[in-house]
Amino acid sequence: MKKIKQVTIVGLGMMGASFALALRRAQLVERIVGVDVHAMVVKEACAKSITDFATSSLAEGIKNADLVVLATPVVKIMELLKALAKLKYTGFATDLGSTKKAVCDEAQRYAELKFVGSHPMAGSEMAGIPGANVRLFENAPVIMTPLRHTSVEAIEVVTNLWKQLKARVIVMDPEEHDFSVAVISHIPHVVSITTMNTACILADNREDVFSIMAGGFRDTTRIAGADPQMWRDIFLTNRTAVLQGIAEFKKQLCELEAAINNEDGAQLTEILSQAQCSRKRLVPPNQ
Amino acid sequence: MKKIKQVTIVGLGMMGASFALALRRAQLVERIVGVDVHAMVVKEACAKSITDFATSSLAEGIKNADLVVLATPVVKIMELLKALAKLKYTGFATDLGSTKKAVCDEAQRYAELKFVGSHPMAGSEMAGIPGANVRLFENAPVIMTPLRHTSVEAIEVVTNLWKQLKARVIVMDPEEHDFSVAVISHIPHVVSITTMNTACILADNREDVFSIMAGGFRDTTRIAGADPQMWRDIFLTNRTAVLQGIAEFKKQLCELEAAINNEDGAQLTEILSQAQCSRKRLVPPNQ
Repeated sequence: MKKIKQVTIVGLGMMGASFALALRRAQLVERIVGVDVHAMVVKEACAKSITDFATSSLAEGIKNADLVVLATPVVKIMELLKALAKLKYTGFATDLGSTKKAVCDEAQRYAELKFVGSHPMAGSEMAGIPGANVRLFENAPVIMTPLRHTSVEAIEVVTNLWKQLKARVIVMDPEEHDFSVAVISHIPHVVSITTMNTACILADNREDVFSIMAGGFRDTTRIAGADPQMWRDIFLTNRTAVLQGIAEFKKQLCELEAAINNEDGAQLTEILSQAQCSRKRLVPPNQ
Repeated sequence: MKKIKQVTIVGLGMMGASFALALRRAQLVERIVGVDVHAMVVKEACAKSITDFATSSLAEGIKNADLVVLATPVVKIMELLKALAKLKYTGFATDLGSTKKAVCDEAQRYAELKFVGSHPMAGSEMAGIPGANVRLFENAPVIMTPLRHTSVEAIEVVTNLWKQLKARVIVMDPEEHDFSVAVISHIPHVVSITTMNTACILADNREDVFSIMAGGFRDTTRIAGADPQMWRDIFLTNRTAVLQGIAEFKKQLCELEAAINNEDGAQLTEILSQAQCSRKRLVPPNQ
């Protein structure tokens, strides 16, 4: 297997910077290079030694790279795949993008790229380098989505890297991935932002309403603090599965609404018990 | 002010048992008595010294009580107020119920009861005595809902008790309370159980979908693990405000759905930024 000496991370947001920190701590590579379009971020990455070298130029950043890791929002990842092909980059590449079908379809257009998609199921509502966490990927599930034509070497290199960062690698095809994350991540996000926006409209500037906030509100709205651009791209590139999820959510919500409206205690107990039972069965305690 | 020697807590679930533990640690009273309809709970309360004495009999439990604390689901609290009046209890009384209009209306029917409603904004998805937490009320907002005819002495006694347990006392009228908690607690609960039930239906027994679960799903569904009976009573006794909240939530959800359906990136960014901005402004960091 080819020895990975240099990894270039494109996008030094919370995810990219966490990846850089984890990579450095694991001492897996000789050189970590960062690329970010924002000059301030490049400066911050250098000042805080997040990477060994950082630049705003993709061409400069990928020079001598054995592996390029695309750590931007999904629509940008698709543009970067095209840019890598144009720059005649022929090394390994992966991404940290939150949807996989659109990314993998785009990657397939560039046969010379040794690309395999990956999606670490880890995140934070914190943004940028200040939100970076060296342990973000430890024990996190990382979904890899190789295609039939994906280079076996790329799969090996990227799988090996994730394993050394102590992530749990799971293999899925891109469609299966996108549907599963819609259920487990994108619908909860839809719900979280909608809860936050609904509360503000209902409170109608009476902000004392928020003075009585307890854990339930804090927890259900935590992910509403996440990056809008990243989530815009997720909704745009996983449109079908997210719309399917919203349709089902609305159906369930209408059933609950009807039970409340009809003061149907038995039906309310049934719906609430179902949720309690599933939650206890599917989500390990103390998490 | 009358010295409180004995407090009787009716309902030794997670809330009642936490109240007993907090009261004992603060060494505020001479005797803590527990009442619970379940013989097993009475036994457990005695075995674990949650209270100084426990019984299944309300009449026995309230004997010599200076203050009775009703810590059951709301509909049961209303029945207990009637039972206290029937037993000719004339001491102080309060409750820990999650809605206040229905409870205070019922309490007003019994002029001899020195009742003032309170609602600690603290909870847990844990149930029963094993879920009890001696620090549950520390720094928690506790909403008290005195009415025009409420005994001033009752207000003093109950306020004083909460303050000694280190809770933050906030005064509201019952309608204002019920609307505020609908926004901050009941709608998030509606959303949490609906997210849980929707995920199960979408996953359709393919439980490997849940193997990729990350923090977002765990947080948004945490409160779905709470007691169904308690929440049935909340929905039944705060029907109007909860239905109003659901109607607004559905409106917001439909706007987001339309933006996704129309692939309207600008509108998605707008909705997501609004939620992010509100969340950052209204929810203190690190919570």
